[in-house]
Amino acid sequence: MAKAVSGFSKLNKTQKIDWLLNHYFHGDRAFQEVLQSYWNSNNKLQQLHDEFIENTISNFYLPLGIAPNFLINDKLHTIPMVIEESSVVAAASNAAKFWLNRGGFKAEVISTVKNGQVHFNFYGEKQALFDFFKTITPKLIDSVQELSKNMEKRGGGLIDIVLTDKTSQLENYYYLHCTFETVDAMGANFINSCLEQFAQTFKSEALKEGLDLEIVMSILSNYVPECVVKAEVSCKVDDLAQGEMQGSYFAEKFVRAIAIANVEPRRAVTHNKGIMNGIDAVVLATGNDFRAVEAGVHAYASKNGQYQSLTHATIENGIFRFWIEIPLAIGTVGGLTSLHPLVKVSLAMLQKPTAKELMQIMAVTGLAQNFAAVKSLITTGIQQGHMKMHLMNILNQMQATDEEKQLASAHFKNTTISHSAVIEYIESLRK
Amino acid sequence: MAKAVSGFSKLNKTQKIDWLLNHYFHGDRAFQEVLQSYWNSNNKLQQLHDEFIENTISNFYLPLGIAPNFLINDKLHTIPMVIEESSVVAAASNAAKFWLNRGGFKAEVISTVKNGQVHFNFYGEKQALFDFFKTITPKLIDSVQELSKNMEKRGGGLIDIVLTDKTSQLENYYYLHCTFETVDAMGANFINSCLEQFAQTFKSEALKEGLDLEIVMSILSNYVPECVVKAEVSCKVDDLAQGEMQGSYFAEKFVRAIAIANVEPRRAVTHNKGIMNGIDAVVLATGNDFRAVEAGVHAYASKNGQYQSLTHATIENGIFRFWIEIPLAIGTVGGLTSLHPLVKVSLAMLQKPTAKELMQIMAVTGLAQNFAAVKSLITTGIQQGHMKMHLMNILNQMQATDEEKQLASAHFKNTTISHSAVIEYIESLRK
Repeated sequence: MAKAVSGFSKLNKTQKIDWLLNHYFHGDRAFQEVLQSYWNSNNKLQQLHDEFIENTISNFYLPLGIAPNFLINDKLHTIPMVIEESSVVAAASNAAKFWLNRGGFKAEVISTVKNGQVHFNFYGEKQALFDFFKTITPKLIDSVQELSKNMEKRGGGLIDIVLTDKTSQLENYYYLHCTFETVDAMGANFINSCLEQFAQTFKSEALKEGLDLEIVMSILSNYVPECVVKAEVSCKVDDLAQGEMQGSYFAEKFVRAIAIANVEPRRAVTHNKGIMNGIDAVVLATGNDFRAVEAGVHAYASKNGQYQSLTHATIENGIFRFWIEIPLAIGTVGGLTSLHPLVKVSLAMLQKPTAKELMQIMAVTGLAQNFAAVKSLITTGIQQGHMKMHLMNILNQMQATDEEKQLASAHFKNTTISHSAVIEYIESLRK
Repeated sequence: MAKAVSGFSKLNKTQKIDWLLNHYFHGDRAFQEVLQSYWNSNNKLQQLHDEFIENTISNFYLPLGIAPNFLINDKLHTIPMVIEESSVVAAASNAAKFWLNRGGFKAEVISTVKNGQVHFNFYGEKQALFDFFKTITPKLIDSVQELSKNMEKRGGGLIDIVLTDKTSQLENYYYLHCTFETVDAMGANFINSCLEQFAQTFKSEALKEGLDLEIVMSILSNYVPECVVKAEVSCKVDDLAQGEMQGSYFAEKFVRAIAIANVEPRRAVTHNKGIMNGIDAVVLATGNDFRAVEAGVHAYASKNGQYQSLTHATIENGIFRFWIEIPLAIGTVGGLTSLHPLVKVSLAMLQKPTAKELMQIMAVTGLAQNFAAVKSLITTGIQQGHMKMHLMNILNQMQATDEEKQLASAHFKNTTISHSAVIEYIESLRK
């Protein structure tokens, strides 16, 4: 049935879908109709979205939700969140509300340095390489002057180039460790362009000197432990009372849950996953690259040799303190930020933040998400809230009528929700 | 300007947007129009998407692209990919084509065991706890019989419960380590429901025995090193020739690039980020949870105490071999898979795969992505291809006409593309 295809990228969208239909859908036009039902009726807008990537056949919808009441450094924010998982926006909103009455969130950017490397092999005398690097450094810096022009206007540019000897780990392996300030841009294209220029200049100058040097590759690093933001909440232990649970007991159980995530990687991974539910939702809504953020954050979680919690909590002198410290290399200019109309709306909703401000907002959202998750886990358990949110999805899946939905909501108020229980209930109604 | 809001979640969509407009957009209706321009004209379909999460105000578009020519275990696939980053689908397609003529991809699932824990504190004699656990185990298993009914029908269910002593890391800390088979479901709700039931039974039975035991929390783990898939390509070194570059030289440089990603975390993080470009795109297209996958994969990359490459390459007896081994806990039933119409299209495109088959497809996409990235890095550099893809985005940003686009494409065929160069060029045309 399926056959290899040549020149596929040259086909237009309709031809691509036709090919797909014939080879994978037995010509069933129903699939074409579904794909088309997601196209925007505005052709120009649709074309814009089609051109973001290659071989686009439709727009994948992810819900854009909003979480209000985030008090961050004494400023109130409503945070745009793009996420398909139910209960994440609700949890963020609840945490925001909870801390709104307890002083809100404090956030600060600790550093914003990005980095990249020119990885290379060198087969000669170490000292000769270091001597050569010293003499060639001004030429390297000079070689990216044209590329850096605009970035420098905005207050950024190259910070430093350091020759790094990695031969103890891998024979003949060295790299140029290059650091950059990219201000409000994520800066991937700028950094990669600079690095490739360094590689070219470095190689050609080495050739002139007769040095036996081979460039392996030049690329930015998504590991950004020098681009770090911190967010925090704190309040009196007594202000943490939850229903019948005393504030001091809640605080101690909370601190214990964080301690567990610090010593047990099986817990830490899920703990941090919950944090990323919040962060990625803002990353997506603001047109940033969640794979880059995810990779950098999780690697940071393993920096001490064991994968650990990204959040921390203490109780000192009757004060509960809960904070996060994470690397976030993101931007508010360039890339999708100026292309995707809904990204523009998200950034406008956040009052056109600088990259630093957006780092703070993202860190706060992650902290809020973690607070809500741990709070659920140590009190009612995570399923109670989650399954209620999930109920509507199961009902939709069964194409429940409005009346069935109302009956089901009432029925499951005091009954354990499970996938099979909901199906059984609706089927019983339909008998 | 912005004020805190109460009862926000109870407002309907229009009211929410009105509130947003008044508080963050100075009442500017243009933003409302943008949000609405992304609503689907089919009200029922729109309602479905609105109900996926809370406080939904619009549909965020991510492009759904397709990458054809993936030969996996001798079967040809076209892979649906949801991603906003340009050049990822193109790179996947190129890698698929490259390996199509070299035997294609081989993939196999090594294991599919999921896990979760009931974390608790115990303040008594260790031996008493272990004795109690032994006598109570049948009751624990029994307590989830009703919950497991459906999962067991499909061939899954609880595998084992093991009492784990973690007191050497944290005083009085133990957990029940529970393993599950969830067949074609990701199984988060099933596992969490079972764990909360275990916690309840465990606690109440402990009380009866007078054991001083406190449940901290019960939750599945997204660290799934027992749910692993492997994908591989191989061919004669001579078949790897790239233009003027000999196959043997290419192979050696490729192996070197992987070795570097193994010893240097700054490179490993970006290396693995590229892998996740491919994997997440399929995760999203098939309605799975990319935060869960990301967390599990990156933690796995750090399992040896240092963050390392997820792919491996060797040259032996003139044969180049390149493979990936990663944990992927995903599903093809439940959750969004049966709700999101485009997820249904994606799964149909993949010929309704089992979870095991989908694990293979995802691992292959990650491997293909990594092959394409490393191939670019060690030959032309990553920017050449990337900036070409990026050119169209910059042109769109400048609202270039079709004629300007054609002129720019021609002009930048042999000229270095940079953001400022493109802007300068278009501005020169417009003068």
